Amino acid sequence: MNGSKHSFIRMKHDYAALKVKQDRLMDAIHNGCKFGASHRYGDDPTETGMARMSLDDSDKQIRDWFKSSVESIGCVHSVDQMGNQFALRPGKNKQAYPVMMGSHLDTQPTGGRYDGILGVNAGLEALRVLHEHDVETEGTIGLVNWTNEEGARFPMMAVASGVWAEAVPLETAWNLSEVSVSNDGTKKTMKQELERIGYLGQQKASYKEFPFAAYFELHIEQGPILEMEQRKIGVVEGVQAFKWFEITVRGRDTHAGTTPMYARMDSMLCAAKLIVEANKIAKGYDGLATTGILNMQPGSINTMAHTVTFTLDIRHKIDEKLSQIEKECRSRFQEIAANESEKGCSLEWKELVDSPAVKFHEDCIAAVRDSAIEVCEDLPKSASDGQLWKLMISGAGHDACYTNRRCPTSMIFTVTKDGISHNPREYCSPEDCELGAQTLLGAVLRYDKLRAERGEL
Amino acid sequence: MNGSKHSFIRMKHDYAALKVKQDRLMDAIHNGCKFGASHRYGDDPTETGMARMSLDDSDKQIRDWFKSSVESIGCVHSVDQMGNQFALRPGKNKQAYPVMMGSHLDTQPTGGRYDGILGVNAGLEALRVLHEHDVETEGTIGLVNWTNEEGARFPMMAVASGVWAEAVPLETAWNLSEVSVSNDGTKKTMKQELERIGYLGQQKASYKEFPFAAYFELHIEQGPILEMEQRKIGVVEGVQAFKWFEITVRGRDTHAGTTPMYARMDSMLCAAKLIVEANKIAKGYDGLATTGILNMQPGSINTMAHTVTFTLDIRHKIDEKLSQIEKECRSRFQEIAANESEKGCSLEWKELVDSPAVKFHEDCIAAVRDSAIEVCEDLPKSASDGQLWKLMISGAGHDACYTNRRCPTSMIFTVTKDGISHNPREYCSPEDCELGAQTLLGAVLRYDKLRAERGEL
Repeated sequence: MNGSKHSFIRMKHDYAALKVKQDRLMDAIHNGCKFGASHRYGDDPTETGMARMSLDDSDKQIRDWFKSSVESIGCVHSVDQMGNQFALRPGKNKQAYPVMMGSHLDTQPTGGRYDGILGVNAGLEALRVLHEHDVETEGTIGLVNWTNEEGARFPMMAVASGVWAEAVPLETAWNLSEVSVSNDGTKKTMKQELERIGYLGQQKASYKEFPFAAYFELHIEQGPILEMEQRKIGVVEGVQAFKWFEITVRGRDTHAGTTPMYARMDSMLCAAKLIVEANKIAKGYDGLATTGILNMQPGSINTMAHTVTFTLDIRHKIDEKLSQIEKECRSRFQEIAANESEKGCSLEWKELVDSPAVKFHEDCIAAVRDSAIEVCEDLPKSASDGQLWKLMISGAGHDACYTNRRCPTSMIFTVTKDGISHNPREYCSPEDCELGAQTLLGAVLRYDKLRAERGEL
Repeated sequence: MNGSKHSFIRMKHDYAALKVKQDRLMDAIHNGCKFGASHRYGDDPTETGMARMSLDDSDKQIRDWFKSSVESIGCVHSVDQMGNQFALRPGKNKQAYPVMMGSHLDTQPTGGRYDGILGVNAGLEALRVLHEHDVETEGTIGLVNWTNEEGARFPMMAVASGVWAEAVPLETAWNLSEVSVSNDGTKKTMKQELERIGYLGQQKASYKEFPFAAYFELHIEQGPILEMEQRKIGVVEGVQAFKWFEITVRGRDTHAGTTPMYARMDSMLCAAKLIVEANKIAKGYDGLATTGILNMQPGSINTMAHTVTFTLDIRHKIDEKLSQIEKECRSRFQEIAANESEKGCSLEWKELVDSPAVKFHEDCIAAVRDSAIEVCEDLPKSASDGQLWKLMISGAGHDACYTNRRCPTSMIFTVTKDGISHNPREYCSPEDCELGAQTLLGAVLRYDKLRAERGEL
């Protein structure tokens, strides 16, 4: 995306009166969070985290609320075979594909009140603004609540948008078993739970059955960049590439007191060196490296581990750079295990995930950028360079990665306090929620206008 | 211990005829290992490891075997309140305290056939040799089987010799609960299990009630030094100092994809740097550092751990050097956590064990050394310097550490294949078992003679 290549769409006169309401937005967020609230950390009613696992009873409650909320403002509600909920607000042209907003209402087991939830509620607020101003858009505008985005209960992230995009087979998704056993001692599948809570829809879960003209997703940044740079809105150009590996280091379990250093095959010490090295290599390429899981056997204070298994998550904006990070890690790891670990350890790499970089659509990015510029125009210029919006690459995956395969897509990021997410203390201020929702509304209206001007309706 | 200070006791004419029998020794070891054999790794009947947990049914069986074996050669058997089994073979002077041999018959859950087992069986073989040659020793010679040396079932290592030495209170030992639940779903205490298997003796568990004149323990080295240097017998001068710590690293759990390197408080990366550093520091002092346990929370591939807890086992022959290793680790760890871990992590140290260096008694060391010299005399000179015995410091703790508090003590080490111990494949060849047992017998007879010559009887 190069801003200079595209027309700078300014239609402030059209959208100036269409303002999202902060109070209504925040009320909707926090009222909805009554379903699944958990992990209280303060006295205020809103000072809890969330544990709304996909397709559990609290997820049914928030789904019922979603349905009644969108129907109360005249939207047409439907549910597909994956439980994805769609709300459509018809425009002047009722045949054209809808411009969609959306995100998800499920959370992590120790999640917060904004990840996903802000995106759906901002879309609902945008629809409410259109409704109360009786705006007739050029084409239909809609909102989607995707099922099981977190992949926390059924272990496949963004699985339901994946089925919609025909990137994940329906049966694969339906047969996913939950991670932990239910109260009755069994593990339920997605299909069983969709049926149980009444959200196994008839509508085929496919972009062919329910095509989008475009998709816009508002989300908290989940990182510290906007906050640290004192900016307000992230205009998301794409999602960085990432790869997940499970690396097994094999040494020998010998006694911590009787084995001289030179005679050791200390798999934990070797793994520690590899983790430090991966970090150094990734930093050298301006990429990321993280070890989130490490297990060791046998696990006794005075016995070296014979086996250490750890995960390595490496990321970079550019696919080629990620490949270089991986290549360098593989080469250096081999050297460290063979030559820098006393009597040596052996290594095994297993690739778990390979997710290439995603590039969002330039028209959607432009719509978000232009909306962000307008929204930020009258705010105090807190950033050192005075620019309150920033072109960003998402560090995390989102449903937008799958929609991007089937329709023009972009995302909007809001400030996330201390960059903390997937945590009960996750926080985005009411002001920032409002700015995000306003940017979302502006982007959707701009895109709607654009397609009309282009004669696509 | 300085060899030149002590008389070089040579009494080959006395002991030459007293030869341990390799076949009888190995038969005793492997017949006894039928009780608790586990973890088969080869076709030969002896190619299994052991899982004879202290005071379990197989431990009762081997204890019954111990009792009948020593009684069959005319020894007096007794059991104390900790289930320690004592066998005495009276000498010319029946009033003097006995010179004791001993070790333990319990094993690790994935243990081998030699750790502890060799020491008890070598003592039994020594008693058999005295018995069959009808030798009248100067004073009484005895053998002890200590309870729960491993600390694997009841989590306190060498607890029963600790009670004997009055270093551990009897009630503390009795009330120790087993690590895992029993078949009936409860956790038994040592006292309950002593009662259940019929080994809760009446005899007070105390060195005051049952004093030793001296104590000699034969044990596999459990390390690779003798094997690598192609020597045969370790003459053990003492046990190195060690300290155990549990170190907690606290950072922040943030998203692996959305958190830039500079904004991280990655507790796993910090812990990895600390483990590498501890190893470097210990190496610099010619000491040891090992991390045998590491746990991290929350444990998700794409989330940094907020907390990592790991154990640090540091060892050195000299107490002062160990203190220096600890001091340097504390100082460097602080620097790494505060200044070399991006936004920084916090550290907490918890000391679990502080075991100062143990120095065995010079008379016992001399007896072992002189016996080893004699035993090695006619063997092929495999070591590069031709010396088949070596003065050594034990890397691991043993019951001998506690006896050393109450009577002159030393130990004898035998070659351990590949230095592997606490493992089903632990191995000491029949030839090396024989050399060890012969050295034990010679050491005991030398010490017995010495005390007579000194007029201590």
